[in-house]
Amino acid sequence: MKDDNFLKENNARHMWHPMTHPADSLTNPPKIITGGSGVRIVDVDGNETIDAVGGLWNVNLGYSCAPVKEAIAGQLEQLPYYSTFRGTSNDAVIELSFMLREFFAPDGLSRAFFTSGGSDGIEIALRLARQYHKVRGEAGRTKYLSLKKGYHGTHTGGASVNGNPNFRTQYEPLLPGCFHIPAPYTYRNPFNETDPEKLAQLCLAALEDEINFQGASTIAAFIMEPVLGAGGVIPPHASFMPGVRDICDRNGILLIADEVITAYGRTGSWSGSRHWGVQPDFSVTAKAITNGYFPFGAVMIADHVAETFENDETGKANVASGYTYSGHPVGAAAAIACLKETQRLKVNDNAAARGAEMMAGLEALKAKHDIVGDVRGGEGLMNALELVSDRATKKPLDAARTKTVFDTAHANGVMVRVSGPNLILSPPLVVTQQDVADILSALDKGLAAA
Amino acid sequence: MKDDNFLKENNARHMWHPMTHPADSLTNPPKIITGGSGVRIVDVDGNETIDAVGGLWNVNLGYSCAPVKEAIAGQLEQLPYYSTFRGTSNDAVIELSFMLREFFAPDGLSRAFFTSGGSDGIEIALRLARQYHKVRGEAGRTKYLSLKKGYHGTHTGGASVNGNPNFRTQYEPLLPGCFHIPAPYTYRNPFNETDPEKLAQLCLAALEDEINFQGASTIAAFIMEPVLGAGGVIPPHASFMPGVRDICDRNGILLIADEVITAYGRTGSWSGSRHWGVQPDFSVTAKAITNGYFPFGAVMIADHVAETFENDETGKANVASGYTYSGHPVGAAAAIACLKETQRLKVNDNAAARGAEMMAGLEALKAKHDIVGDVRGGEGLMNALELVSDRATKKPLDAARTKTVFDTAHANGVMVRVSGPNLILSPPLVVTQQDVADILSALDKGLAAA
Repeated sequence: MKDDNFLKENNARHMWHPMTHPADSLTNPPKIITGGSGVRIVDVDGNETIDAVGGLWNVNLGYSCAPVKEAIAGQLEQLPYYSTFRGTSNDAVIELSFMLREFFAPDGLSRAFFTSGGSDGIEIALRLARQYHKVRGEAGRTKYLSLKKGYHGTHTGGASVNGNPNFRTQYEPLLPGCFHIPAPYTYRNPFNETDPEKLAQLCLAALEDEINFQGASTIAAFIMEPVLGAGGVIPPHASFMPGVRDICDRNGILLIADEVITAYGRTGSWSGSRHWGVQPDFSVTAKAITNGYFPFGAVMIADHVAETFENDETGKANVASGYTYSGHPVGAAAAIACLKETQRLKVNDNAAARGAEMMAGLEALKAKHDIVGDVRGGEGLMNALELVSDRATKKPLDAARTKTVFDTAHANGVMVRVSGPNLILSPPLVVTQQDVADILSALDKGLAAA
Repeated sequence: MKDDNFLKENNARHMWHPMTHPADSLTNPPKIITGGSGVRIVDVDGNETIDAVGGLWNVNLGYSCAPVKEAIAGQLEQLPYYSTFRGTSNDAVIELSFMLREFFAPDGLSRAFFTSGGSDGIEIALRLARQYHKVRGEAGRTKYLSLKKGYHGTHTGGASVNGNPNFRTQYEPLLPGCFHIPAPYTYRNPFNETDPEKLAQLCLAALEDEINFQGASTIAAFIMEPVLGAGGVIPPHASFMPGVRDICDRNGILLIADEVITAYGRTGSWSGSRHWGVQPDFSVTAKAITNGYFPFGAVMIADHVAETFENDETGKANVASGYTYSGHPVGAAAAIACLKETQRLKVNDNAAARGAEMMAGLEALKAKHDIVGDVRGGEGLMNALELVSDRATKKPLDAARTKTVFDTAHANGVMVRVSGPNLILSPPLVVTQQDVADILSALDKGLAAA
């Protein structure tokens, strides 16, 4: 690799960073990460920090997961690539699909469609939902419903069901027929309802109202994250997702679970849908499936949906979708190793235990620091602090003071993620009690400094 | 890995294959590829074949490219993942972006936006094109124009500009404001024009007519492959892409080159745009950038477009797009090694030389076998044979006889790709004269058998 001067001189000069104004990365050059080990990352200046972001909610097993690294290197020697289009398959992906069927059996999901990541999987699920209805002779079912504050990637389909205007405005007009329902976001909602269970009922009523307004026979699917992630970690009340399932069932609407963040243990359960006792029709998984080491994802498909396609004799069920890397043998080998290690370490149990400690610690920080307007989490290792300049008006903290929190936490050895007025925490699921204490301590200093 | 019985029993049982009716893979199980070396692949039954498909137009350096394998394994040890969202970067991606700027300098392209593959890159280019016009105060420029027979992936944006109904029908309604122009496809076109140069002029006139009909001030971008790939290898006349560039310039429309197949040497030039002497505004690259070993892509952005974003002070140029794996350090390391090896081997020169031999051989097969209606190529190592049951009516050969060609070629040691009535050839760019002769010989036997 190039020397430090080269790296600093050329940092952000010849590339654009995602989710960034290109001028911003030129004036505020990104930190150059050069190494990682365990739950820690190191930058070009030698700063070592606990990665409380967990990569991007995906490095669940940390940066030194030898079995996944070895699986990648081994498969590269065997067969470094082949496509699974039409007439070919490979040994790794056959084994992985068998494992995933077992892993997701409690969720009623039995077939996999492989992708290179979460955004891809959203497109596939949205497309297959429409196709399902066409195969069944209900071609009029084409609309999608989703939650405001929801995040479903930035391909065109996902952007259209996204619930945050930041990801939409500059790319309009998006796909027609996408409608958005208020999220069960207790801290801010149009109903001014502060009781999570009552709020869940109001949001469910809004969903049912929208279905009646649009006409159930025009709607293909409802998509939601079991715990909203990028929108600021918004766990719904336990009654919400089961209520959604019931409404979908009564209206012939498919339920797509966006489990890109929640699958494979982050909520303390093996999937976010299982966490709420719900069986979705599609579950879109990615991120932790390879611990972030290889771009890969699996859209899991419910039995009854799969059988509708497999029994089709009209030809309409031809899956005219796919990616060069769908079922990549190296990605499949990485996922096999990752899934085995994930289950061997029972990371879901650690997520639940450490998540409870994190939530308790964050509540204590809220009690201590007025700029903490809200803390959210309580479902495994997904947390957010929403920062405000005034608790009464809930005015979001300005960017400069939020940056002070980030910088101070970083100087104290912890990398967190800033997303608007939210600090988001999604550390590797293998963090220890001490790591959680260190994250909380660095945050405490950051909040005090701001 | 599991034993052969396990693999055969579970083949296609728990996964859906791209571009396939799920019932088809159950009744005709895919071949299970288990190994690869040089330009050859091996299946579970021990059949070794020359891979005349080159993976999926992407394994340009073959299956034993040690520098790329070593780069992946090495980077995995150093830093197996980090995101390039907003505040972070990594050493590998900084080095790669510097290299790509040099590689694409003759095309006028100087910034990279990184993705996990071609479909992703299409979404990014389509989105950035709209955003560019909004930043410049021309928010009404939102429509996209493209070519019938063109292929631009299967995310929702790409599906909307795709020119083949197979990839569209079951997923309608797609993005509004996408319009399609006849392709310069000499063998079949609505003008019944058989002279390639005259046909190019007719297609250019159709493009200009459509722009006038829609209103130039409503159009964001025109997207095209420099040589149409999945649509059946359709190289336009040399006057076509320069003509498109001129029309775009005169109408304030951005030109997106879909170089997912053509970049990095396949046409005999280092990029398809350069092959035709054209500088596009965006160039979408993927596939051969890592030799298929790691899902990765780079959207290259023209200077003037980049500067429009970088000089923006309205905030509209915030790039609210991105993927978990954008700028993945392992993918970047793979691409650095692949680009070095690609240039060291001068694979573009071999593509040109072997491509000329392939084209001459295919012309000879056409002279010998009546079922060959058309052979196309002549621009490096991209070729297609279009099979017909009757040369006068050009009726496509039926699937059963096409399968006989495929099966016979396979039994004679060569894997080709069947796409409707086309046989597509896109072997690794490191094939030898002998490999080309072997491919032609196996095809000869296949065509004779049908």
